[in-house]
Amino acid sequence: MPKSEWFAIPKGYNAPQQVHITQGDYDGKAVIVSWVTPEEPGPSEVFYGKKEKQYDQKAEGTTTNYTFYDYKSGYIHHCLVDGLEYNTKYYYKIGSGDSAREFWFETPPAIDPDASYTFGIIGDLGQTFNSLSTLQHYEKTGGQTVLFVGDLSYADRYEHDDGIRWDSWGRLVERSTAYQPWIWNSGNHEIEYRPDLGETSTFKPYLHRYMTPYLASKSSSPMWYAVRRASAHIIVLSSYSPFVKYTPQWWWLKNEFKRVDREKTPWLIVLMHSPMYNSNEAHYMEGESMRAAFEKWFVKYKVDLVFAGHVHAYERSYRISNVNYNITSGNRYPVPDKSAPVYITVGDGGNQEGLASRFNDPQPDYSAFREASYGHSILQLENRTHAVYRWNRNDDGNNVPADTVVFHNQYWTSRTRRRRLKKNHFHLEKLEDLISLF
Amino acid sequence: MPKSEWFAIPKGYNAPQQVHITQGDYDGKAVIVSWVTPEEPGPSEVFYGKKEKQYDQKAEGTTTNYTFYDYKSGYIHHCLVDGLEYNTKYYYKIGSGDSAREFWFETPPAIDPDASYTFGIIGDLGQTFNSLSTLQHYEKTGGQTVLFVGDLSYADRYEHDDGIRWDSWGRLVERSTAYQPWIWNSGNHEIEYRPDLGETSTFKPYLHRYMTPYLASKSSSPMWYAVRRASAHIIVLSSYSPFVKYTPQWWWLKNEFKRVDREKTPWLIVLMHSPMYNSNEAHYMEGESMRAAFEKWFVKYKVDLVFAGHVHAYERSYRISNVNYNITSGNRYPVPDKSAPVYITVGDGGNQEGLASRFNDPQPDYSAFREASYGHSILQLENRTHAVYRWNRNDDGNNVPADTVVFHNQYWTSRTRRRRLKKNHFHLEKLEDLISLF
Repeated sequence: MPKSEWFAIPKGYNAPQQVHITQGDYDGKAVIVSWVTPEEPGPSEVFYGKKEKQYDQKAEGTTTNYTFYDYKSGYIHHCLVDGLEYNTKYYYKIGSGDSAREFWFETPPAIDPDASYTFGIIGDLGQTFNSLSTLQHYEKTGGQTVLFVGDLSYADRYEHDDGIRWDSWGRLVERSTAYQPWIWNSGNHEIEYRPDLGETSTFKPYLHRYMTPYLASKSSSPMWYAVRRASAHIIVLSSYSPFVKYTPQWWWLKNEFKRVDREKTPWLIVLMHSPMYNSNEAHYMEGESMRAAFEKWFVKYKVDLVFAGHVHAYERSYRISNVNYNITSGNRYPVPDKSAPVYITVGDGGNQEGLASRFNDPQPDYSAFREASYGHSILQLENRTHAVYRWNRNDDGNNVPADTVVFHNQYWTSRTRRRRLKKNHFHLEKLEDLISLF
Repeated sequence: MPKSEWFAIPKGYNAPQQVHITQGDYDGKAVIVSWVTPEEPGPSEVFYGKKEKQYDQKAEGTTTNYTFYDYKSGYIHHCLVDGLEYNTKYYYKIGSGDSAREFWFETPPAIDPDASYTFGIIGDLGQTFNSLSTLQHYEKTGGQTVLFVGDLSYADRYEHDDGIRWDSWGRLVERSTAYQPWIWNSGNHEIEYRPDLGETSTFKPYLHRYMTPYLASKSSSPMWYAVRRASAHIIVLSSYSPFVKYTPQWWWLKNEFKRVDREKTPWLIVLMHSPMYNSNEAHYMEGESMRAAFEKWFVKYKVDLVFAGHVHAYERSYRISNVNYNITSGNRYPVPDKSAPVYITVGDGGNQEGLASRFNDPQPDYSAFREASYGHSILQLENRTHAVYRWNRNDDGNNVPADTVVFHNQYWTSRTRRRRLKKNHFHLEKLEDLISLF
């Protein structure tokens, strides 16, 4: 993607800035385009088309804004662009006259169990030189869509929870977010509960600025939702919303798991902010409350991968579960469990709080790999049975993934279904011999 | 208290009904009076005074209403009556002309470590003959204020979540709620999340109908708050709102525990709906998520008693904690802990769902007493050191408490402070010899 000037305010009166797109429907045939105009609302229009500079279609959006303590936001635009074709490059333009700006994005392949697709996974990004380094590295690893696991701008870490830092973050990440969808999730730094500043609603800036296609997955809140993309079914959970039994998120997830069709989307991926398995001293066991509520479903539905952030380090678990834990008389430790997901913490995006470098000693049995370095992950879905996963450390060159695993799909590579596979999907066998197998 | 006709609609055009009062401030010098007028809003006025029929003071309230699917509520009035004197009987009148209705209430003693006071504890009440039986028994046990642990009307169990059942419940309990404060808490039956009926907000009828003095304890939500009354500091937690670290409820509780002054209010009591310790098969371990978040504070601040509902049975724990549980390498079971609260489940109010009669077998070590019968509890705070507690089973006569314990205060009877006690507060010593000690 082209290198626009990061952080810089684009030239021209009321020029659109902080451009970002996200998936706009359940199946990947729509995007939501969002941006901010600083001076006046201006039109909420996206002009788009399949040929460069030829914008033969137009979509109309809406405008909102908000205040936070002494900060007043610009005019925030959200515009749904739908009815798109799969596997197609679209060009789009927002703003008008000299202030107009042009971008492009590519739609995913149609929902198909063998559709190849590459996701980047980034968390706890912030706006430091390390954040920029993570973005720069990500640009080189070929990700087509970012799964973002929460903690965006860290505006709440600046004096008076400075809303200006939401704007500067939006400009920093535009180099990626304007060109490919970021699947958003919120973290604790999005809560922005500041009774001392008279701000007692939660997630106020986040909810104004970042849209999610929650209605398409029958969710009643933008905080939790699901999208299907290529061969993946991606479930986004909100760590800081109600989630215990009987709450809306609990009901929604119970139903969403039933809607998952592994015959169409074999790869079942869950995103959350606070990790359920983490052996770092930072935020140790903070995910226990959600684990108590949801882990049994993750095992029952054979979730492939659970990505979280929150802890500013990288960690990958083995397939383990602690679902037999019983407060009266049960098992104490997480145990190996073939039906369990792999838990991966990628809170190493590079925010101003620094790295979480103190791990519990010794490394627990459930932890496969851990390291306190900045970076991001790449998940390359090859087909219904295999995916190549890499953790990329910023400190390294481009071609030295620091942790590499080939994941076998939890649905299609179970013994029964393996027999049913007529074609040989195992073209990755050689790679398997070369790199460490999970 | 006088026996008004329960369930009956009071006579007279637009007569106030469903009258209920709750504490209106932090320290017990105010009440909030609430009622419903069916035909038209009418005045939101409470006339009150210290002599019967002589209402020399007036307070003005506000009116609200709501719809829920095909139900339209009456006009719901909430009126703060403040600046009251302690230890005083007040008479009050609402409505006008032939439709006026008169009631009374008594204010508590001033905040004082040795103030005697009697609380009733009721949960999961509903509106059945068992509910009425619980109310009738409660009237005879001398409680001055009810600590209600959630699940009020069970309106959500009727077809289309029938709002009329909120009205009938309000009339059923008026015989008590009009004459003494009920300290409200919500349960899962208050969530009323019904996307199938187009109702996706949560707690809608509850929040319109039942006020809490949450601002007085610096809470940002009516769902969690605290009040001080006589010698007790009562903390109300919301099981179905966000509560994990970094959420508003978590921050609020962290600060509220710091505000507790055991020198003034020695009795520290926590209310929640979903119990943390429960050995019934019903809702077993549903409280684990909140236990993971809050138990360590309960032990740190030496909470005396935690009351919950949810499970339709009665259960009392020993003083135990599981705070050393560690997902990597820790203790598995709850262990005896002198700093831990006693956990009491009183979800046995008598709702339409019936009793939860299947307990885990064998009874776990942490469980001291359990029985699936309808009833309510009474907590009689004698002074700073002793409280007499009884569980009253509806099936019995009035004078046969089925479970009786004398609780020693967790702050004043610790070894250090016991020495500092200059006066002898142990006038209950004889009683202790007679009944089973905890």
